[in-house]
Amino acid sequence: MREVAIIGVGNTVFGELWEKSFRDIAVEAGLKAIGDAGISGEEIEALYGGNMSAGRFVEQEHVGALIADYAGLAGLHIPAVRAEAACASGALALHLAVLSVASGWYDLVIAAGVEKMTDVESDIADDLLASSVDREWEAICGATLPSLFAQMARAHIEKYHTTSEQMAKVAVKNHSNAVHNPYAQFRRGISIEAVLGSPLVADPLRMLDCSSIADGAAAVVLCAAEKAKEYTDSPIYVKASAQASDTISLHNRRDITTMDATVFAAKKAYQTASLEPSQIDLAEVHDSYTIAELIAIEDLGFFNKGEGGVATEEGQTEIGGRISINPSGGLKACGHPLGATGIRQAVEITEQLRGEAGKRQVPNAEVGLTHNIGGTGGTAIVHIFSA
Amino acid sequence: MREVAIIGVGNTVFGELWEKSFRDIAVEAGLKAIGDAGISGEEIEALYGGNMSAGRFVEQEHVGALIADYAGLAGLHIPAVRAEAACASGALALHLAVLSVASGWYDLVIAAGVEKMTDVESDIADDLLASSVDREWEAICGATLPSLFAQMARAHIEKYHTTSEQMAKVAVKNHSNAVHNPYAQFRRGISIEAVLGSPLVADPLRMLDCSSIADGAAAVVLCAAEKAKEYTDSPIYVKASAQASDTISLHNRRDITTMDATVFAAKKAYQTASLEPSQIDLAEVHDSYTIAELIAIEDLGFFNKGEGGVATEEGQTEIGGRISINPSGGLKACGHPLGATGIRQAVEITEQLRGEAGKRQVPNAEVGLTHNIGGTGGTAIVHIFSA
Repeated sequence: MREVAIIGVGNTVFGELWEKSFRDIAVEAGLKAIGDAGISGEEIEALYGGNMSAGRFVEQEHVGALIADYAGLAGLHIPAVRAEAACASGALALHLAVLSVASGWYDLVIAAGVEKMTDVESDIADDLLASSVDREWEAICGATLPSLFAQMARAHIEKYHTTSEQMAKVAVKNHSNAVHNPYAQFRRGISIEAVLGSPLVADPLRMLDCSSIADGAAAVVLCAAEKAKEYTDSPIYVKASAQASDTISLHNRRDITTMDATVFAAKKAYQTASLEPSQIDLAEVHDSYTIAELIAIEDLGFFNKGEGGVATEEGQTEIGGRISINPSGGLKACGHPLGATGIRQAVEITEQLRGEAGKRQVPNAEVGLTHNIGGTGGTAIVHIFSA
Repeated sequence: MREVAIIGVGNTVFGELWEKSFRDIAVEAGLKAIGDAGISGEEIEALYGGNMSAGRFVEQEHVGALIADYAGLAGLHIPAVRAEAACASGALALHLAVLSVASGWYDLVIAAGVEKMTDVESDIADDLLASSVDREWEAICGATLPSLFAQMARAHIEKYHTTSEQMAKVAVKNHSNAVHNPYAQFRRGISIEAVLGSPLVADPLRMLDCSSIADGAAAVVLCAAEKAKEYTDSPIYVKASAQASDTISLHNRRDITTMDATVFAAKKAYQTASLEPSQIDLAEVHDSYTIAELIAIEDLGFFNKGEGGVATEEGQTEIGGRISINPSGGLKACGHPLGATGIRQAVEITEQLRGEAGKRQVPNAEVGLTHNIGGTGGTAIVHIFSA
């Protein structure tokens, strides 16, 4: 298998984009990535689209072909794939795109993630989110995503004495980072008190512990590493791309304070890249809820199990800390348009490793990691990148 | 890229399976394929699931992880992918699975297609089917699948003098074949008169010109060809796996009597396999409507453009004819559970090339082809297999 590089990235603003359609934002992100790569559309050999639920959000399936068509690529008749793994659909599209180039099947492809969530009522969106967990054994009993993550939080609190303040610190840090991210949905700082005073959603999780429903799209152009310098002076190399699964429902897990899918995907990624967790300078992790970031930074091996809360409280995960976690603002402050998130994470790491992240730039960023999960961790996908 | 072989296949009966759930049928087909391959589940390194619209049909996304979980594979933490390209989702899952083994990424994987369509009202199902075409420019104007295929039929009739009787002959032939297929939804013969006397759906297409809404699942186990003989004495080799796209909407095509996605995918497949259309002994093609089979057998190069109707009338596409088309009964008589169809086609070709197709056995079957399209041809995927 040959090495793969990112040569172009693009992102829409995330948020309530009522004036734009699903296809508009997909194409906008794609064109930005193509422009950033300095390629013409004709060079693209395949398209990998990540999307969770356009079938229900905008009553449109077949979105791979749709995006290729509206991006003006229909005349090329390129393969157009739609990949879905709930909230990890973006990273899954990236994973498949990486494989397609690493294998030699294609030389240059585009991976795009997109979700249009705000054109439906919010109660419908809540139910759609619950289609990422086990409909027959969880959602049908009223166990929606916030309540399931609340169970994880409760278990983490009991087992490791994690506090609500530590969880709140995740939100505060990520909002603080997002102030400097022009693509983030929420570019304003919040306080610990604001988080702790926000309405209770599912005890112990409050409104400001939760990421938001949003519209958005992101895209990356990938090519064979040996050809990357023909396109850019600053290619970003994909050192590992690993995917793992777990039970889709929470009640069958051995321990709900950890996500085995993350543990397995990370282990494989570190092996592939020949790197240790301590060698990662920054990571975009899946903070769909504040507790999810704490579990992730433990499961990814950045901190010992149960010490994520303390490490966060001590500022070890801030930009310039021991390891910068979610310098973009994460799902919490960027917004979480499901299928777009996994690709947006890769866009952020690319900009960071290029040294183009402006006021949110992580010092000496050389190796970055992305972590994207589906549902409550039925899927986890980990990528490692280096400059 | 190394060669890939099918070492096990499995299929549920297709039809109104009201006593079984989405996950039940996916697991049933998977276990049959695993049993047929003589492997243990622990040998499976990744799962590729093809499904179009479980999000709307059964309110469940994240179906890759779901199927892996309910198949008892969660403890292995294997990557579980869901691929979607509307009605071509099954073939897309197969395509990605083939790539994953051909590349050396994995040695042994399973590809499964599944759709549970009959648990919703039929008018909802009709609308769901319309999410495979352009929602904003076609479906929203009332142009559902039958009406779009009717436009293709009308154009074919005008341009090539194709007749309603020739289209009806497709249905008659496929029903005749399905009599001998234990997995088919409709195991009874029909007459030309019955087709021509059935209710008009969208002029000139009548009820018996249309494939049916059905539940069903199918699965194949794939491994590296060099290891196939360790598992079976009769591996079936994947000689080509090719995907192409076109405009998702019909009105932007250069010619609606042909599907360029099919033309491009077929061209690539023949090149990869170093074969000519005349060397194909049998094919499972996408006869979602009778006109679709005529267009397919022309676009695949089996007959000159415009001569599909006459060839069908003359019996050239019957079992034992010049080329046996849809010996299984096709989508028309097997039923068309969207995401399952592309895999079911591969199951049929495998059984035929093994010489295990019983009374529907194609004589001297050595090279077989499958052709699966999404929507009205926004996606086409062609596979070629040999014994």
